[in-house]
Amino acid sequence: MNKEKIEKPENKCELQKILDIIGGKWSMSIIYALIPEKRRFKELERIIPGISTRMLVKELKNMEENGIVTRTAFATVPPTVEYNLTAKGKKLDPIINDLYQWGLEYIN
Amino acid sequence: MNKEKIEKPENKCELQKILDIIGGKWSMSIIYALIPEKRRFKELERIIPGISTRMLVKELKNMEENGIVTRTAFATVPPTVEYNLTAKGKKLDPIINDLYQWGLEYIN
Repeated sequence: MNKEKIEKPENKCELQKILDIIGGKWSMSIIYALIPEKRRFKELERIIPGISTRMLVKELKNMEENGIVTRTAFATVPPTVEYNLTAKGKKLDPIINDLYQWGLEYIN
Repeated sequence: MNKEKIEKPENKCELQKILDIIGGKWSMSIIYALIPEKRRFKELERIIPGISTRMLVKELKNMEENGIVTRTAFATVPPTVEYNLTAKGKKLDPIINDLYQWGLEYIN
């Protein structure tokens, strides 16, 4: 095995940073759910099977801080919160679709 | 908001299955490390920053069971184990690269 060929660790660190943001168990499912349109919190909770309220709150907060989703609160009774993908988040659409196609071809 | 537009949950379940296999914190980093060539366990451990031995064992086992990597053991002293991407695993190369490019453009 040729040791010269091993890439420098910096590359791996970059990928780790990316995966810390969108590589979680739930973040890609949330992005996927937001691709067709913006959604209310309750809606996301309903259409992402298996996610807990706490985890959805946590993931959305993380994604908002990383500029992947925007959060808009409406002063309704009860209060409504709507999430939408940013331009940066929308750029993940084809990647998640490719991943999905890969899965359709190779899983099951 | 138009309720008709919400996709059926089955789609989300499919994506969850895919993400259960390759959406973990480490699996994409492992695939990325195996793209240029097959690698020994010790090598993977060294070039993936922050992964524990236990986690690497666990992830590789999961990836082997899901047909993403092959594991070849050599009866050397000490024993050597080599991992390589399967054809199915190699198909993830362009997707991980797109993700990486997205990160370079949007992170930092």
